[in-house]
Parts: sequence; C-alpha cells; structure tokens
Amino acid sequence: MKKALAIDVGGTKIYSTVINENGEIIGDIEKHSTPKVYSEIISTFKNIISKHENEIDIVAFSTCGAVNNQNTGILGSTGNIAKEYPTTDFQSLSSKPVFVENDANCAAWAEYEIGSAKGCLNSVMLTLGTGVGGGIIVNGQLLKGKNGAAGEMHFKLRTDKRRKCTCGAWDCFEIYCSGTGLKLTGEEVSGNSNITTYDIIAGYKSGDEIMTKIFDIWQDDILAGCIGLANIFDPDCIVLSGSMAEFVDIEYLTKETNREIVTTPTKVVKASAGNYSGMIGAALLAFRKGF
Amino acid sequence: MKKALAIDVGGTKIYSTVINENGEIIGDIEKHSTPKVYSEIISTFKNIISKHENEIDIVAFSTCGAVNNQNTGILGSTGNIAKEYPTTDFQSLSSKPVFVENDANCAAWAEYEIGSAKGCLNSVMLTLGTGVGGGIIVNGQLLKGKNGAAGEMHFKLRTDKRRKCTCGAWDCFEIYCSGTGLKLTGEEVSGNSNITTYDIIAGYKSGDEIMTKIFDIWQDDILAGCIGLANIFDPDCIVLSGSMAEFVDIEYLTKETNREIVTTPTKVVKASAGNYSGMIGAALLAFRKGF
Repeated sequence: MKKALAIDVGGTKIYSTVINENGEIIGDIEKHSTPKVYSEIISTFKNIISKHENEIDIVAFSTCGAVNNQNTGILGSTGNIAKEYPTTDFQSLSSKPVFVENDANCAAWAEYEIGSAKGCLNSVMLTLGTGVGGGIIVNGQLLKGKNGAAGEMHFKLRTDKRRKCTCGAWDCFEIYCSGTGLKLTGEEVSGNSNITTYDIIAGYKSGDEIMTKIFDIWQDDILAGCIGLANIFDPDCIVLSGSMAEFVDIEYLTKETNREIVTTPTKVVKASAGNYSGMIGAALLAFRKGF
Repeated sequence: MKKALAIDVGGTKIYSTVINENGEIIGDIEKHSTPKVYSEIISTFKNIISKHENEIDIVAFSTCGAVNNQNTGILGSTGNIAKEYPTTDFQSLSSKPVFVENDANCAAWAEYEIGSAKGCLNSVMLTLGTGVGGGIIVNGQLLKGKNGAAGEMHFKLRTDKRRKCTCGAWDCFEIYCSGTGLKLTGEEVSGNSNITTYDIIAGYKSGDEIMTKIFDIWQDDILAGCIGLANIFDPDCIVLSGSMAEFVDIEYLTKETNREIVTTPTKVVKASAGNYSGMIGAALLAFRKGF
C-alpha cells in the first residue's frame, strides 16, 4: 500500500506524519512552529521531507492559502503566513511527487472519504476557528472554480458596513461566525471590550443570560449561512468542523435550516475525521489524483 | 441534424418553438397563457406536442420549479404555478423522449453554450426579474446538488428580519435584488407605497436624486451577492439576465466585485443568448444528455 508524507502548514504550526491509502495515520505526529521567513519555512519543509523521503511515495501538503487547479502551488496567501511563502516551487522540495491543496479543502475531503460526509456526493464544510474555512464537494469532486480559489466563506451577512472582515471587505460570514466573530458579538452586546470567547462559552454553558444571548446571536449567524449554502448547493449535509464547532447545537441548526430552505431537506453535522483531517485529506486527494 | 420541441413554462405564459442542435430557433415562437388548473396545463402541453411531434426528435421543457437529477420531473414548485402542476409524468406527454430542466438552469446553460459565458467552465447566472432565478455552472456541468434543487438564490443579505421573501424566509437576496426588491427599497426610501419600479428606473435615468439613491441601494445589494458568489465559486464570470438586468452598471459591478473578493479576478456580464434562452438551453441540455 502506498504511503504519503502529509504536511499541514498553518500560520503558527506545521504538522507532519505518514498516512496510507486508507487514510490511516501510520507515523508519529511531528510538530514545528511555523517560521516567519521564507528561507526558514523551506528549511523546515526540507528537514521533514529528507527524514521520510525514503519510506514514502508522495508528499502531500495541506496548507493555508488558495491552491491552483494543478495542485502544484499557491495562488495567494490569505495573510496568515509569511508573504514570501513559496508559491510554485513545491515540487523542488522532493524527488517524490509533491501534491498541494488548501487546508479547508483537504479537511472537507477527509470528511467525504472517511468522516461525517462519507457517501455524500454533495456537501459543504465550514471550519469554525479563529477564522472560517470552507471546503465544498459537488458531485463527488472538490469545488475549485476557474483557478482553484473557490470555497471562500466571504459572503455578506449584512450590507450596512458594521464589521470589517480580516479579508478587508465588510460584513463577511467569517467575521460573524468565527471565534473572532463571537468575541465581537460579545463586545457589542455586553459593551465590554475585554470579553473573551472563553467567557462567552463558559457563561453560556452555565446559563448566564447575557452570554446566552451573545451565543445565540452568533449561532443564528451560522444558521443564516447554513440556510444560504443549502439553497445554493442542495447538499446532502453541511459539516461543521474547527475548535468552535463543538459548541453549536447541531439539532437546532438542522431543524431551523430545513424550516427555511426551498431546496430539499439536508442536515447539519459535526466533523468526525479528527484533528488531523487536513493531512488525511491531503494524502487521500493526492492518491486519488494519481500523484 | 436533430430537432427539439422546446417548451418554456412560466407562471403566466407558455412559449414553444423548434430548436436544432446548434441552438438555433428554426420554428415559429408560439405563445399561450398558463392555465390555472392541472388538466388545462396538460391539455396545452398535449396540443403543442401533437402539433409538432412528427417533425422533432425530443421534447425539452424549461420550467419554473426545481427539477430532479434525472430530468424527468419536478421536485416541487416555487409557488408561481398551479399546485397541481405535473411532477413526474412528463414522459407520458409524448412518444418522443421528454427532457425537463429548471428555467434558470436552462438559461444559464444557453449562456454557457452560445452566450456571454461561452468558454467559461465556471459561471454563475442571476436572472433578475419579478423574482430572482439562479443557474450555476461548475467545471462545465450544471450544479444540481443531491436532488436537483441547487442554484436557489435565497441566501440572506440581512439577519434582522426586515423583509419577508416570497419563499417564506427572511431577507433573501431575491427579495432585495428582484424587481419586487427594487420597489420595496423604493417604498422604504421614499415613504411612498405606490412607487413603481418604472418610476424608479425612469427617475434614475433622468438624474432624480431620490430615485438614484434607491437605484444605488438596489444595485449595491446585487453587488453584495456578486461578491459572495465570486468568493464561493471563483467563477470566470457572473452573468446577469432578466428584465431588470438591462439597467445595471456592469462596469461598476465588475470593478467593485474584484475590489472586494479574495478569489481570483472575475467579471460581471450581461446575458446575450436572448429572450428565448430558456428554450435554447433546454434543447441543448437535452441533446447533450442524449435524450
């Protein structure tokens, strides 16, 4: 059975491990800090690859940033990694074939192959963390668009310029439905600019009235996104992943989404492919694409 | 060359004609009022079909309502046609193969094959009329979703329950960006509940300040939708069709969309496949699918 060296590149951490064609993790999970400058990022990649190159068949990157349709390089970063992050020279890192895909797309693919969206030819995944990532499966294929940048969850939930999103535009889904969005909703409702997502979640869990109100506004913004995406894609399911997904009420979101959509009934589910779904998805996509 | 009898079924009118494999209209355009009851709709279909059945190879319906993935029947109407509209018995109407697809999807396909989106493997079409229709092409295929209902432009532009959409939910793109939406924006801004879309468009064209303000709000709502859809799909283009599309400023929408999106540059264009694009698209899709 073939083996992939999977490398997950985030703004702060780089993870790596070895994964087989079944999507099983068969190596240790290695963890590095993400260096701030180009040359050191490249050195980190080279060190990881040289250590494993003889035992693996392909290298599969799950990375932040939009990845081209050839899966060979980055179209442009979203700003959470060094500006000099490599764009088209991934293949030069190894003598083995090197595959690259966006991390949210990889995670969505892992859910499709081995997770909550298994068997669902049409699904939308929302990764709710510090920001929001998106990965969409249409008819059993990753939705990439003309250049590979599709799946960005920057559609507007307001049109009166209330919050500037991290992308520079106003009022995107991300700036309301991320962890950052929860904190901002908390600040607006409580008037306390020092409020944290932790405060809100803890207060919500203990039944605090104000914290529950904040949480409900945040969750209803997620609901608004689910409704729109369900009407656009008529998906089998909407998968919620990421650190913030554990707090949402899946039954409520499913019920209310189905109450509002004009498309056919769908379900909102939590991701189940685990913390390393980005690496698993990258490896499985690379195998599928014949890298 | 094969010929299709194309039939376009709307809430008020039924059109029909004969179309060849090049998408050329080679028959007269026939027009009927849409009857209000099931039996009369069926009679109208049968009369049209019996008149042409000997000269054509297939029957291709472009219809309101969501159409299943087998292109044999309707999943459910959107409410602008008789409740008893036939659902799965289209094939019984003719001895020739009968193909069915949603009208907005058909129009999007016509733009893809012979119109403004020709050569664009990824496009989003918005039909701006009394309501809003949507048709999406992903990688050269119509986006249908799990059951065929995808492409509904009912994503929320507000989340504070300002306007009830025709679909029953609150604040959908459709209820802001349709002709109906323009009138409602006009009512809100002017305080005049008798204002018409005609008043607004005429005033906007003659430079009236209030009417221009109303128009600009409406157009910026369309822009908000374009930005979201461009971020979700990374499309080659967004095609605007329908009676309201002729008034929008395409250059403004293209420039502002590209200024805000995180995906790769796109363009907003007007549809060019003409008034009968629904019938043309239905015929071309039916030929493509081998009906």
